[in-house]
Amino acid sequence: MTPHLARRTADIQPFHVMELLRRARELEAQGRDIIHMEVGEPDFATPQPMIDAATRFLAGGDVHYTAALGLPQLREAIARFYHERFGADVAPERIIVTPGASGALMLALAATTDPGDEWLLPDPGYPSNRHLVRSFEGVPRALPVGAATRYQPTPDQVADAWTARTRGLIVASPSNPTGTLLDQAELAALRATVIARQGTLIVDEIYQGLTYGVEASTVLKSMDDVFVVNSFSKYFGMTGWRLGWLVAPQAYVREIEKLAQHFFISPSTPAQHAALAAFAPATIEILEARRNEFALRRDTLLPALRELGFVVAAEPQGAFYIYADIARLADDSEALAHRLIEEAGVAATPGLDFGDNQPRRHLRIAYTNRCERLLEAAERIARMRG
Amino acid sequence: MTPHLARRTADIQPFHVMELLRRARELEAQGRDIIHMEVGEPDFATPQPMIDAATRFLAGGDVHYTAALGLPQLREAIARFYHERFGADVAPERIIVTPGASGALMLALAATTDPGDEWLLPDPGYPSNRHLVRSFEGVPRALPVGAATRYQPTPDQVADAWTARTRGLIVASPSNPTGTLLDQAELAALRATVIARQGTLIVDEIYQGLTYGVEASTVLKSMDDVFVVNSFSKYFGMTGWRLGWLVAPQAYVREIEKLAQHFFISPSTPAQHAALAAFAPATIEILEARRNEFALRRDTLLPALRELGFVVAAEPQGAFYIYADIARLADDSEALAHRLIEEAGVAATPGLDFGDNQPRRHLRIAYTNRCERLLEAAERIARMRG
Ligand SMILES: Cc1ncc(COP(=O)(O)O)c(C=O)c1O
Ligand SMILES: Cc1ncc(COP(=O)(O)O)c(C=O)c1O
Repeated sequence: MTPHLARRTADIQPFHVMELLRRARELEAQGRDIIHMEVGEPDFATPQPMIDAATRFLAGGDVHYTAALGLPQLREAIARFYHERFGADVAPERIIVTPGASGALMLALAATTDPGDEWLLPDPGYPSNRHLVRSFEGVPRALPVGAATRYQPTPDQVADAWTARTRGLIVASPSNPTGTLLDQAELAALRATVIARQGTLIVDEIYQGLTYGVEASTVLKSMDDVFVVNSFSKYFGMTGWRLGWLVAPQAYVREIEKLAQHFFISPSTPAQHAALAAFAPATIEILEARRNEFALRRDTLLPALRELGFVVAAEPQGAFYIYADIARLADDSEALAHRLIEEAGVAATPGLDFGDNQPRRHLRIAYTNRCERLLEAAERIARMRG
Repeated sequence: MTPHLARRTADIQPFHVMELLRRARELEAQGRDIIHMEVGEPDFATPQPMIDAATRFLAGGDVHYTAALGLPQLREAIARFYHERFGADVAPERIIVTPGASGALMLALAATTDPGDEWLLPDPGYPSNRHLVRSFEGVPRALPVGAATRYQPTPDQVADAWTARTRGLIVASPSNPTGTLLDQAELAALRATVIARQGTLIVDEIYQGLTYGVEASTVLKSMDDVFVVNSFSKYFGMTGWRLGWLVAPQAYVREIEKLAQHFFISPSTPAQHAALAAFAPATIEILEARRNEFALRRDTLLPALRELGFVVAAEPQGAFYIYADIARLADDSEALAHRLIEEAGVAATPGLDFGDNQPRRHLRIAYTNRCERLLEAAERIARMRG
């Protein structure tokens, strides 16, 4: 049987790292010890207060659909969090609870993108963005970004790349794969550039809260005409629960509600009840301790990698990734990733997953492991080269 | 701020019943007792063995992403269920675990639908189908179906409606809103008509297991070149968990995996662990008791409605819906639904939500309430008319 595939499928790439992960699992099945530094999720468990909240809720057994936009009390809790933690005033009505930031991105793109509309996407960047744009028949346009601008696009670059078909710009702060930030002034300048062109700005704040040496912040402090994507996945340690949110400009909410009804019916009910405990002081205390631990890991791994010959020109200030130039070590990051896994038992993600901008020269290394393991990984890599 | 909306949003309707639900909540807040017969979900709690499985899993705290296609052991459990319960042999590799049947429909449509491709959809039918087709830039084409064909399309009707742009046909058995079935011979004839035209058949079996006086079955017993959509929502009582599955023809699986990675990353991990207990004998025993209860409710409500003047020409054999012609009672089902809620405290769903085929003449009434409540609803309606 020849499948009758939609044309979009030809443009959609898998996560290449999955191949590597498969190989890692094979080696583990053979008894090899693999240090996982390829994974895009915290190694921590979901904080106990959230587990407890979900367990208490489940004991009742009534796990029904909620409103498509999410439980009103969760939307209010998120609004309170914006106010208390960041001093940002966001009406609960503008907060749409979604199945992860993934669901939030889908809704924002489906609501705004006509066939042929172009979105500007920094490259390297989170791979799903370009595939979601393509899925709704938009056209992803890469903005190559490098260490000189801390892997973030500049207003001039956006202005130069803008065409009559450009619909908007997606940025992430902190960014995946580079861990670099945009400050409020940079965000304001990007917004001005986009808005002046009647475009739409989407700011992905999924790694909000995971910043080191810099206070966490939100673009919502000063802007209410941008889309903000967020999630309980990363800072809150809830990847597997599939829960995130979208903050939409008020004028879009009703349209997005319709899409949410048909795409998802509603977000996961147990996850929403767990998330109601996400902002409790006891939870935040756990999360802030983890944040300190991540900072320590970054400060442990970064010098160790530099010692090995990896070049990290733009210091990562957030998320849990180091995006390293491997030119001094190898020609091709994919081949290097395979050598690392076979010879050193270390898994990392080749640049290929993040775009077309010198992907073979870069590797993303996640510090989602205890410091001892990070140092052991560095030692194993050192031995491999010798 | 004028929103810059994608054109698709103009074609996407909300669930109209939500307006009614809002009114119901207002009345309830004023102390009125509302009998809810508008809801598309079982009133039962999630069976205890599944709650227990999820709770045990959560105690470990490690709630991470799973593989995009779902936990291998869950895919195998679903395959075993097909074999043992229905005598259908389905390779686990073809089973894609999704965020509800909603997620399964999205994946099947995104993988197969190019802009302008037409899908034939029985009308009345599940509203999200046409909106999901539209979301991926396909064109929904209604096939008006009536009581004479038990609200299911016939091969001749499909053949007549087929054009050069037709991509395929979506049917549901049991159907929402009518509760009517397609038997294996009818499904085989529809499949032959579709396949002869190089089209794709999607069979939505989300109400599988909820049939009364007829054995539950699956189209997968005799066909492996159709898409089958299913879910843990209805028979398994897991609506709020957001978990379902898609069975795809083998040649599509790899492409759908890529889409699933970017749309969803992975399905809910706690839900997948709960679902691992879905096929245990203790669970099935609970579910079969509920099925008997639903049968009893249907047999209670159907004559009571007929007594009131509602006409139900095609006997519902599955799901938990009665799709009633209201012509003897009122001119307009939407106005009637409002009168029912205001004057009788009974909530039901006007035909408007299910398409354009005489919607104002029909009401969907769900028997997701205990028999006493169903009879009370009938009494209240009788008093209202008097
Ligand atoms: C930048 C970025 N955005 C969005 C997501 C989606 O995450 P989720 O759907 O789990 O919230 C990820 C996940 O890795 C990410 O790195
Ligand atoms: C016919 C039909 N298909 C699909 C769905 C989607 O359900 P879920 O996403 O909860 O599995 C529904 C829900 O009511 C339905 O009635």
